[in-house]
Amino acid sequence: MIYLTKMQIRCLLSTKESYNSKVMNTIEQVSFKTKGYQIVNITDAIQEFVNRHNFVKGLVNLSILHTSASLTVQENASNDVLSDIKTFLSGLAPEYANYLHDIEGPDDMPAHLKTLLTNTNLTISVASSKLILGVWQGIYLCEWRKFGQSRSIIVHLLGE
Amino acid sequence: MIYLTKMQIRCLLSTKESYNSKVMNTIEQVSFKTKGYQIVNITDAIQEFVNRHNFVKGLVNLSILHTSASLTVQENASNDVLSDIKTFLSGLAPEYANYLHDIEGPDDMPAHLKTLLTNTNLTISVASSKLILGVWQGIYLCEWRKFGQSRSIIVHLLGE
Amino acid sequence: MIYLTKMQIRCLLSTKESYNSKVMNTIEQVSFKTKGYQIVNITDAIQEFVNRHNFVKGLVNLSILHTSASLTVQENASNDVLSDIKTFLSGLAPEYANYLHDIEGPDDMPAHLKTLLTNTNLTISVASSKLILGVWQGIYLCEWRKFGQSRSIIVHLLGE
Repeated sequence: MIYLTKMQIRCLLSTKESYNSKVMNTIEQVSFKTKGYQIVNITDAIQEFVNRHNFVKGLVNLSILHTSASLTVQENASNDVLSDIKTFLSGLAPEYANYLHDIEGPDDMPAHLKTLLTNTNLTISVASSKLILGVWQGIYLCEWRKFGQSRSIIVHLLGE
Repeated sequence: MIYLTKMQIRCLLSTKESYNSKVMNTIEQVSFKTKGYQIVNITDAIQEFVNRHNFVKGLVNLSILHTSASLTVQENASNDVLSDIKTFLSGLAPEYANYLHDIEGPDDMPAHLKTLLTNTNLTISVASSKLILGVWQGIYLCEWRKFGQSRSIIVHLLGE
Repeated sequence: MIYLTKMQIRCLLSTKESYNSKVMNTIEQVSFKTKGYQIVNITDAIQEFVNRHNFVKGLVNLSILHTSASLTVQENASNDVLSDIKTFLSGLAPEYANYLHDIEGPDDMPAHLKTLLTNTNLTISVASSKLILGVWQGIYLCEWRKFGQSRSIIVHLLGE
């Protein structure tokens, strides 16, 4: 995936208003196999989905179907940023903090809280068949449980 | 409301791409009477709204019109999770923390901060006339003030 | 911009369902010059954008193209609320907290964390050519870096 520079985005966005009579309204489920405590860049996978459907312009709505994993748009250049995010959220929502809900393991309630503080859905615009993200932005799937698993995301294209 | 299992979602999502010439674009205001410090599951109410409009496929955009109440998608199975969320956010944003803004009562500024950390809008996909949520997910309205009141949510259906 | 009272919103939303064959799908980039550590109300600018395109009803999707600045919907009446938000988030994510990522200055990693806790995109509904917000709500651009700069937001109109 080619990230857009500021100049390129301006160029893409010089397209005229469109009033189309055909609306693409396509929904699919995409699954990702995660590792424990992983924040993984899924931008390329979402861009491939856009490409495969020849989606040119509109909204991509992403919904994660879990309550102990989440979505965020974050820095794509430095793995240290991702490590700092994990340390930060584990500091805010530590394990063994006298939670009432502890039957699913010490990492479960912290995972719900980290999900609360981030996102279960993101709505990204597409122009000229490309996800519109800043140069330093990527779309991330956050696995907040200790062990990896299969995580499902709904990808919904609404536009043209 | 029947929550979808993973297999059922896959089945729903096997629908073909659609290019429709008629777009439903419907907006209504729905009000809820809350109790103080309550996190209440409003999934059924939103699903009923989808049913009433015969909305089959598209986006449901929810916007709460307040700054001391918010929206989130969270665990629907355990009330302990909701209690832990309240305890957690009250720990992060406690009352009487030397806020500059204190004229509306000690629970007001914490309520703005809890709103900041959660969501004022959610965008959920609908397929085959059902809100697409994971098995353990529900849509919640969070009342962060000490006393309950009437809270308004805009429900916007865009699709078909 | 005229903020809507509760009664006025009810009136706006009494419009009938619409099934239109022409969909507006317009995307533009808007830039704002910020000052350091500033939370700035951009509601009027977004409303002007809606007016300029004669956008009547649909979704406005806002995406900020940065990872150290963010978007939120918050209280529009009291500057003290905005100050308290800055103090609160600086307390949660302070400078010099032994971050691994520190090469871009002590305010950079805190800025990523504040962005993580708030939003990179917002989806707001429009009816009768007006952004639907509560009486006390405004749309805010948050500059989390120490020095101001030019910040770009994608404004995407999907509807009619």
